[in-house]
Amino acid sequence: MRNAAMWVSVVTAVVLVAGLAMSQGDKADQKRLRHVVLFKFKDTAKPEDIKTVVDAFRALPAKIPVVKRFEFGTNVSPENLAQGFTHCFFLTFGSDADRDAYIVHPEHKKFGELLHPYLDKVLVIDYWAEK
Amino acid sequence: MRNAAMWVSVVTAVVLVAGLAMSQGDKADQKRLRHVVLFKFKDTAKPEDIKTVVDAFRALPAKIPVVKRFEFGTNVSPENLAQGFTHCFFLTFGSDADRDAYIVHPEHKKFGELLHPYLDKVLVIDYWAEK
Repeated sequence: MRNAAMWVSVVTAVVLVAGLAMSQGDKADQKRLRHVVLFKFKDTAKPEDIKTVVDAFRALPAKIPVVKRFEFGTNVSPENLAQGFTHCFFLTFGSDADRDAYIVHPEHKKFGELLHPYLDKVLVIDYWAEK
Repeated sequence: MRNAAMWVSVVTAVVLVAGLAMSQGDKADQKRLRHVVLFKFKDTAKPEDIKTVVDAFRALPAKIPVVKRFEFGTNVSPENLAQGFTHCFFLTFGSDADRDAYIVHPEHKKFGELLHPYLDKVLVIDYWAEK
């Protein structure tokens, strides 16, 4: 009987801790400043130029730790409303200050210089994620 | 001693199950078709018109269950590269088929009709999220 009670206590404690950790993860996830970047490359940009740019962008989060999350992809929308943009990069910051630090970071500026010769159009929109 | 062994077994089992659940969550999360929608409203759209549109968009995921995740926000970028777009909606689907079902869904079409009188510009880009 005492054994059973102990089991129940242990399982309850572990479930409570796991639940707390999950709910805190959710809360931490709510403070998300999204930074959406769209590129259209020049027609003269070769596939290898575009790959160089994409790889350099993907390498930024490791160099600029204020980037909390990073993902990207190329347009697959069938709606034909992408206005010529082909690449979307989606970064997440935890604060305005972190986003501002990213913008002026030397590695970000170096990336801008690498990108510039191949870039036709850019669009950037930042938003605080709401449900 | 037997009690201690039982404790260890129970805790190990719970940790293993929790770890498995988390790793499966991560895997499920990797198949993400992002659907990014930007709006610029007409200058004649009143704040209450824009609120009506935004609320109607926010109500779509409950009506169209293929929408796996939904978030939105208004532009706060200091870079002045948003090309006039003020609102970003960020939806996630698990497959092309789900995204296609969303596009033709009667509730989505009804939303398009509600939006149309107030809309100046729209941009849509979809991508498969890569790291």
